[in-house]
Amino acid sequence: MTMMIKDTLPDKAECASSLRNVVDALYVLNGKWKLPVVLNLMHSPKRFNELQNELRGISPKVLASELKHLDLNGFIKRNVSAGSPETIVYEVTEYSWTLKNVLRELSAWGGQHREKIKQSMRE
Amino acid sequence: MTMMIKDTLPDKAECASSLRNVVDALYVLNGKWKLPVVLNLMHSPKRFNELQNELRGISPKVLASELKHLDLNGFIKRNVSAGSPETIVYEVTEYSWTLKNVLRELSAWGGQHREKIKQSMRE
Repeated sequence: MTMMIKDTLPDKAECASSLRNVVDALYVLNGKWKLPVVLNLMHSPKRFNELQNELRGISPKVLASELKHLDLNGFIKRNVSAGSPETIVYEVTEYSWTLKNVLRELSAWGGQHREKIKQSMRE
Repeated sequence: MTMMIKDTLPDKAECASSLRNVVDALYVLNGKWKLPVVLNLMHSPKRFNELQNELRGISPKVLASELKHLDLNGFIKRNVSAGSPETIVYEVTEYSWTLKNVLRELSAWGGQHREKIKQSMRE
């Protein structure tokens, strides 16, 4: 185990630096829904109702608040089409794609974690 | 951009599956402090006060609640030493090490994100 610690976090300065990075990342990404919203919009741009249907369990109030936060922080944009009634479609910005590796690892871990939970419930 | 979407999320089923994984991961990891606590304890086991000093900005109430949640979910353990007064030291379990890649990517992203914010404040 000591080997693993040393491989991952060679010294105290590096530990403090990665701690600060993770705290900063979670300052903007924290909560249950921001990353799922980004991931879902990476697949295709969507209207509010479509997004709510795909993210089962999110309330309209929370979704509206997450979209506002993601828009203000440059992760998504709102496209308002001309026409009556006007249509609002949400899509990811280029900046959201910088989260690709974070999402890939989180997805891999989430899948393994679910299997572990299932297995411990069977035992 | 379409190429990138296709590379990352080849079809709708895979999108739904990674969405479910990410939602499940955040169900257990959500909030600002669980991952920083795990990362900090990976460096070395610590007492409550040491942990609170290193995680600047966390209140004792929130830290106590995060430690309880992480303990219940098998990410950390509490070691109570004999002696008077008894000493309680928190350390990560083997299971926390499955989060190594998630933490590495989140740390890399957090560092880049901070640089981007700094740059946009200068402009």
